[in-house]
Amino acid sequence: MDVRAAVAFKAGQPLSIETVQVEGPRAFEVLVEIKATGVCHTDAFTLSGDDPEGMFPAILGHEGAGVVVEVGKGVTSLKPGDHVIPLYTPECRECEYCLNPKTNLCQKIRSTQGAGVMPDGSSRFSIGGEKIFHYMGTSTFANYTVLPEIALAKVRPDAPFDKICYIGCGVTTGIGAVINTAKVEPGSNVVVFGLGGIGLNVIQGARLVGANMIVGIDINPEKKAMAERYGMTHFVNPREVEGDLVPYLVDLTKGGADYSFECIGRPDTMRQALECAHKGWGESIIIGVAGAGQEISTRPFQLVTGRSWRGSAFGGARGRTDVPKIVDWYMDGKIEIDSMITHTMQLDEINTAFDLMHEGKSIRSVVTF
Amino acid sequence: MDVRAAVAFKAGQPLSIETVQVEGPRAFEVLVEIKATGVCHTDAFTLSGDDPEGMFPAILGHEGAGVVVEVGKGVTSLKPGDHVIPLYTPECRECEYCLNPKTNLCQKIRSTQGAGVMPDGSSRFSIGGEKIFHYMGTSTFANYTVLPEIALAKVRPDAPFDKICYIGCGVTTGIGAVINTAKVEPGSNVVVFGLGGIGLNVIQGARLVGANMIVGIDINPEKKAMAERYGMTHFVNPREVEGDLVPYLVDLTKGGADYSFECIGRPDTMRQALECAHKGWGESIIIGVAGAGQEISTRPFQLVTGRSWRGSAFGGARGRTDVPKIVDWYMDGKIEIDSMITHTMQLDEINTAFDLMHEGKSIRSVVTF
Repeated sequence: MDVRAAVAFKAGQPLSIETVQVEGPRAFEVLVEIKATGVCHTDAFTLSGDDPEGMFPAILGHEGAGVVVEVGKGVTSLKPGDHVIPLYTPECRECEYCLNPKTNLCQKIRSTQGAGVMPDGSSRFSIGGEKIFHYMGTSTFANYTVLPEIALAKVRPDAPFDKICYIGCGVTTGIGAVINTAKVEPGSNVVVFGLGGIGLNVIQGARLVGANMIVGIDINPEKKAMAERYGMTHFVNPREVEGDLVPYLVDLTKGGADYSFECIGRPDTMRQALECAHKGWGESIIIGVAGAGQEISTRPFQLVTGRSWRGSAFGGARGRTDVPKIVDWYMDGKIEIDSMITHTMQLDEINTAFDLMHEGKSIRSVVTF
Repeated sequence: MDVRAAVAFKAGQPLSIETVQVEGPRAFEVLVEIKATGVCHTDAFTLSGDDPEGMFPAILGHEGAGVVVEVGKGVTSLKPGDHVIPLYTPECRECEYCLNPKTNLCQKIRSTQGAGVMPDGSSRFSIGGEKIFHYMGTSTFANYTVLPEIALAKVRPDAPFDKICYIGCGVTTGIGAVINTAKVEPGSNVVVFGLGGIGLNVIQGARLVGANMIVGIDINPEKKAMAERYGMTHFVNPREVEGDLVPYLVDLTKGGADYSFECIGRPDTMRQALECAHKGWGESIIIGVAGAGQEISTRPFQLVTGRSWRGSAFGGARGRTDVPKIVDWYMDGKIEIDSMITHTMQLDEINTAFDLMHEGKSIRSVVTF
């Protein structure tokens, strides 16, 4: 069938709105009509050409929401009409990773997903007979896409697509890092580096679990008001701190952060995040994605004296299990999303969403179909 | 009173056996007759002059066992005749650290201990009227020493001093890192870098908790037989591995170590230990002490994909609570110590203990008084 999609033909070039062909779902696959999709930094990272896994031509997009149109043979957990959120981290519930409660990194379809194809090794997308790669197993920059059954979270039907699509990546990544990865306890002091879309969700996650101080750090003072809305209690602009940032933060938190989160993707702020953690028990969680080949460093003494250095991917969430719960929290008013979606647009304006992101003018842009 | 002690007058010089003077215990202090003391790499590190906290002249030694001779005013938990093990990591049970179940790093007397004096700011040792510094709050290279009450673990009276002194540092550091810091579960695959005194105790700790594979790594093939005695199941000599060590270890453990331990103190092996940990959940624990100014590095991707990097000091043990239990385990035959103590000597031969250590000929030398 014909589908409208934003195609990335080449690294470094704007997306091109095209009519492409999508095949129907094969066994254990599902055809989904995408109703809305967020535009995320990871899409921009791949489009830029810096992503060593990036392949072209491809249909990008990994933060969507939509409706099941057709299910392939063997699909038992979904039926046409179900509302779903695509999962770039699937949950098969049977691989070694899914069966280990310490991780959410289902490996069932990792190799084909990384290769831009479906689990059987082929693509469902083509244009004029030429194959187009899938992206992150989701390809939500198309009004119809095909996904494996294990990469779809079924969500309640009354939740608005143009808001809950953000739960497909940013919301879950931020809130999940607090709840699933760090397991922040009530009364903890939390420090968040970077007040973009992820950082704001870390902040509202920290508020949700009853953190005490929630310190936000950003070099852009305009982030302050927005972050306070989600629960930030203290704002620090490193450019206004005299001397080193780390001792300033240790002092501010009276000994250091119980939990710190790096939501920027820079090795220098990753180090600061670790070193501002409390001696004896402070944990630092890396969420930001650093450039290819970049390395983090510290003195091992920082770890031997009780700090720990960890990372979080997709907020440590098991998508089919956890994403529907986060949708419920949104519908129940426990977390905010609406005010984070600063721009909504049609597919043919999608390149504007990238521009807004690069200019720092949006928190999240959402494309509706 | 007059005491026989090995005094470190200057960095880089052998210890000198002297008669020194020790004052009696002040309030909340205890005079202990040391019956045996181990000689540890940390003593050698300070004696070498590389320890930035090192002060001279000092009485080194931090791995002792002895008998309470006299208690100062206010001491309630100990009385003359009690058998004790000195603790370089005290346990006051009332500071912010002791009251946090996530750490063992009691800070009650940290500043004075680091300055080589008792909590009231003065030293109890002198020679010819000249002050001698305490060391790690313990100074066990003397047949009498004074310690704060909170830095003494009371142990059963039937345990032999010349064996349980090793629990004052090496045994607890190794076994405790497994039990308290990593909390290794039965069936885990464990990789241990460095088969010295600490590494062997990590190995027997891993055996104690029912680990599956226990892989030991050392460039000295003579370590193999000894390590097998304590439970090592696989020996790897990096010099005999073709290609990189990390993929070799990931392959050997069928995916990576559930827990890895660095017991050497080198940044390059700390990195290997992290990177051989299992994707998704592998934890790497740094026990070894790196040289001043050295740094560890890795790609943040290693953490974002689920590995965690941590450290352990004194095995995460709370000394007054945990050390008596480890003494019980030894007496009950659950752990071995005797065969690790390869040399026993008198105080006037203590410099030989340092020579044996530097030559790699001893696991542990113990000085008896």
